Amino acid sequence: MSATSPAEESEQPGRIMAGEMAEQPAMLRRILDEGAPGIRETAAGIAARKPRFVLLTARGSSDNAALYAKYLLEIRLGLPCGLASMSTTTAYGARPDLRDVLVVTVSQSGGSPDLVASTRAARDAGAITLAVTNNRDSPLAAVSEHHIDILAGPEKALPATKTYTASLLSLYLFVEGLAGGDGSAAAVLPERAGEILARRAEVKALASRYRFAERMVITSRGYGYPTAKEAALKLMETSYIPALSYSGADLLHGPLAMVDNISPVIAVVTDGRGGEALQPVLDRLRGRGADLFVVGPEAQVEAASAGFVLPTAGVAEEVQPVLEILPLQMLAYEVTIARGQDPDAPRALAKVTETR
Amino acid sequence: MSATSPAEESEQPGRIMAGEMAEQPAMLRRILDEGAPGIRETAAGIAARKPRFVLLTARGSSDNAALYAKYLLEIRLGLPCGLASMSTTTAYGARPDLRDVLVVTVSQSGGSPDLVASTRAARDAGAITLAVTNNRDSPLAAVSEHHIDILAGPEKALPATKTYTASLLSLYLFVEGLAGGDGSAAAVLPERAGEILARRAEVKALASRYRFAERMVITSRGYGYPTAKEAALKLMETSYIPALSYSGADLLHGPLAMVDNISPVIAVVTDGRGGEALQPVLDRLRGRGADLFVVGPEAQVEAASAGFVLPTAGVAEEVQPVLEILPLQMLAYEVTIARGQDPDAPRALAKVTETR
Repeated sequence: MSATSPAEESEQPGRIMAGEMAEQPAMLRRILDEGAPGIRETAAGIAARKPRFVLLTARGSSDNAALYAKYLLEIRLGLPCGLASMSTTTAYGARPDLRDVLVVTVSQSGGSPDLVASTRAARDAGAITLAVTNNRDSPLAAVSEHHIDILAGPEKALPATKTYTASLLSLYLFVEGLAGGDGSAAAVLPERAGEILARRAEVKALASRYRFAERMVITSRGYGYPTAKEAALKLMETSYIPALSYSGADLLHGPLAMVDNISPVIAVVTDGRGGEALQPVLDRLRGRGADLFVVGPEAQVEAASAGFVLPTAGVAEEVQPVLEILPLQMLAYEVTIARGQDPDAPRALAKVTETR
Repeated sequence: MSATSPAEESEQPGRIMAGEMAEQPAMLRRILDEGAPGIRETAAGIAARKPRFVLLTARGSSDNAALYAKYLLEIRLGLPCGLASMSTTTAYGARPDLRDVLVVTVSQSGGSPDLVASTRAARDAGAITLAVTNNRDSPLAAVSEHHIDILAGPEKALPATKTYTASLLSLYLFVEGLAGGDGSAAAVLPERAGEILARRAEVKALASRYRFAERMVITSRGYGYPTAKEAALKLMETSYIPALSYSGADLLHGPLAMVDNISPVIAVVTDGRGGEALQPVLDRLRGRGADLFVVGPEAQVEAASAGFVLPTAGVAEEVQPVLEILPLQMLAYEVTIARGQDPDAPRALAKVTETR
């Protein structure tokens, strides 16, 4: 805990969040240079135990990072995965048989009591436990058999930004380690992240279209879906705009009724199979006259009402999520400033959430 | 397919949906009387194969029913579970090792091509496959090794109501069968459901408070969480009110910033451990002056701004979700009527959604 609160430190609204967003290229470089060898070693140790199933446990932004890991584990390794429903352990005392099961708990602070309790219970039930945190001295790191430090440095703004991308990259490197890959697809990320973050003026201009928005829908499919969920969370917790995220397929099963030309839609279109699978949904949205904002490759942005062109050339689909969220973090920030609010200190949030 | 469209049949707005909601007590009775023996037999056959993990696959309302089954499987059986990310199979061609894995696919129509494809892929990968549908002649039933018919009868209104509660009860009986239980806790449901549905005037009066709502937050924890998600989907697809659902713990990790005295909150408070685990969240919401509507036991409703008292005396917590959703189906219906829209035929929806 710092002696001054974020609100006191923040002379200008959003100064802390803006600073932390700007750190991301250097931080990604640090993870690749200093973190990767240890992550590879952890992965090798876990791979030797031959897990058959993976359960991922997290809340908030970390839950979206965990969902990204789920896609990677299923697609790259063919490991069936589940996201844990924590209350089954903490409220109902369920004691599942977790032999051959890898339990990965993702938490920026590593301090939430329910995550510590459920991880301890998992270890007692025979699971291989891995904590992924931004604090190697945390209770969660202590209770887990294995630990990955995401090396993001202290995060003081309440909305998570750099700890989210640090979690994504660390989880990518971990899964690559399990798969016996070298993780070289991540090498381009620091430079591309820097290019994206330099385009602040472009995002600021785009933010004006959402200044008076009363609700938003954010959609994607495949590797981009965690980005859609994280972007919705970021927009809600900074600007308080109700932002609903759906996988493209789920959007057609009901919520599409809510979309019309006054409900703006943001689509995260990865350059790859996820983006291809989203095409019928994009066509349907265009057919309904939806206001469609695309984060993705140039051709996709040109076919939309507006958008942010991601530099995806030479970037493998599975690492694009590390880049996709950056313009959306910036968008949440700029929309919040445009609405006269302070992105650093949303109402009602504490940095370490004490859910039990 | 019927020759007349729902819109043509519906002389009065909501006539079809109202009729289908009203069928639920008799339908629950039918499942207990005619469906249960077959479900028990299916469960015994699957139990003999000793699955180690369960993957649940569904979309829309069926996905919420699948989430209910996940809680049951984890709490009652200690079986680790995951909800499948379908695009990993259909878009990315992932071929996970599914030996010892039970794959349960829940779909009202049994017709969605991506569900059929992912179930076929699961079976090829060694999984034990079970389809839970409202159509024994569907492609999904044909491609699955086992099938449970939820016996809801034809559903013509676009928002799923009776097929949702039929899926819940069928899944409850299935998990009880796996656990070697007799499922007798469900015996009270038809009568209690009838009592709840008779209170239409009470719900109609409550609906007026949401006539002009621009957004809603729906929360719960444990067994009630699938109800919160289904209620949000129902409200959105009928009334188009953006309704955001969160588990109580997740609500504290960000979205709480969005809740204030102009964002009404609906809390589903089960009578049991899930409701107890939700108490700190309810206290926090009351502390912020939130407009809090509770569906739950009498004392919980009295401590809130408003609510609907559920008859939970003598009803085990794990079957309460079959009852909890009923006043919320009625609420979605009445709010939609109050807003001058037709609950039978939301914009943009087709009954069988052809996601691929």
